[in-house]
Amino acid sequence: MDYPNDQDPGAPVRSGIPEHGRIPKYYAVKAHIARLVEELGEGGLLPTERDLSEKYEVARETVRQALRELLLEGKLRRQGRGTVVAGPKLEQPLSLASYTEGVRRQGRTPGRTLVSLDRFPCPEPLAAEAGLRRGEPVWHMERVLLADDERVGLESTYVAAGRVPDLDRDFDPDSSFYAYLNDRLGVAFGDADERIETVLATPREALLIGTPPALPMLLIHRISRDTEGLPLERVRTLYRGDRFSFTAHLGG
Amino acid sequence: MDYPNDQDPGAPVRSGIPEHGRIPKYYAVKAHIARLVEELGEGGLLPTERDLSEKYEVARETVRQALRELLLEGKLRRQGRGTVVAGPKLEQPLSLASYTEGVRRQGRTPGRTLVSLDRFPCPEPLAAEAGLRRGEPVWHMERVLLADDERVGLESTYVAAGRVPDLDRDFDPDSSFYAYLNDRLGVAFGDADERIETVLATPREALLIGTPPALPMLLIHRISRDTEGLPLERVRTLYRGDRFSFTAHLGG
Repeated sequence: MDYPNDQDPGAPVRSGIPEHGRIPKYYAVKAHIARLVEELGEGGLLPTERDLSEKYEVARETVRQALRELLLEGKLRRQGRGTVVAGPKLEQPLSLASYTEGVRRQGRTPGRTLVSLDRFPCPEPLAAEAGLRRGEPVWHMERVLLADDERVGLESTYVAAGRVPDLDRDFDPDSSFYAYLNDRLGVAFGDADERIETVLATPREALLIGTPPALPMLLIHRISRDTEGLPLERVRTLYRGDRFSFTAHLGG
Repeated sequence: MDYPNDQDPGAPVRSGIPEHGRIPKYYAVKAHIARLVEELGEGGLLPTERDLSEKYEVARETVRQALRELLLEGKLRRQGRGTVVAGPKLEQPLSLASYTEGVRRQGRTPGRTLVSLDRFPCPEPLAAEAGLRRGEPVWHMERVLLADDERVGLESTYVAAGRVPDLDRDFDPDSSFYAYLNDRLGVAFGDADERIETVLATPREALLIGTPPALPMLLIHRISRDTEGLPLERVRTLYRGDRFSFTAHLGG
């Protein structure tokens, strides 16, 4: 039997340490710091790189690699010039409900900042994917997503201009697009297909969201239809992999 | 209007290049190689690092960083001593159906290799999460998941021994656990809660799955119940982020 009694079933088996073979030195340091992170608790200030390298008797670069992974995983975050223990990842339901609703349900305040709003003839790849006509006018609205004023994601919404002709004039980009469709235009969501994958942030995305480049992100592709089954929108939403997880209830 | 006509709606806006500011050199090279990848098509052999660094007139290390990201993202894969264009990511449905069914539906052959099978008294964290009694005997079965003989994931299943007392004797670990429950024991899945996040592979996981360490993975936590609503299993499944995406149909 090789199972420590306090093992969290969501944690890697054997804390990720191989049965045989060499443990990379940075990983041993990472495991030490991970325990320190648990002791400190959310918001706790981590010792400096220099102090950690003295404490564990390893090179600064070794500590840096361990910290880099813990930052990428969202267990730590930078605050000013220091590094503090991060809170748990947000749990966003995979559902027809909007980003807004999901974030509110977790007691956070959702926000959005407009990056760009363009109108152009629907290109072939978008037409094929979203069930639109090639050449028909479409909007592309790009917004940074916020939770409690923290930038957490980036969303591209493609929607036929015929659906929302006055998007540029009577929609407040810092509000819920779903609420706008529903309350102002009487359009209700019927169903959607989603696909979720992990990708690395591009330099532009990292700049807009304010993350280190190459941070693993969760990317959700969505194609949704209204209650009549007619195409509604094609959305590409990128969420910080260190801040978000997604939940689903299946069957039942 | 700032939208190239052939833009794929699933691709990053402006190919990920910032409107203002400097493009990192490695990223410009990455964008060039990404176009080359599209031209070559699946299975196509990429020129060597040396050839690429001469072609784009950059240092070998710059090419290496670009290739590293394309490998992490699953656009390229190593084959022998060369690097070839990878196929598209597998699309696994988020559903009560098993890994086996999902992989078969994509025309691939599922497989599993047993890493370990242990029996121990249920620890507190597992009892709390999975609705089991602390101290009751539970199995922990750990298996590497395969698709067409390629290692693609690592699964930890925790299940009460009372449910499957003879798991160690009459279950073939290279078969579907769900089929075993259903066909042999008459236990059917009722519903499940899942949570999906992105994590980095630990050294042990990287070794077992055969990936580079710190490859971004998709981690799915599952707690499932039978048709009576009684706890069935707690599963932790790690999928290669460069090989898998997950799909869901919502509402409708």
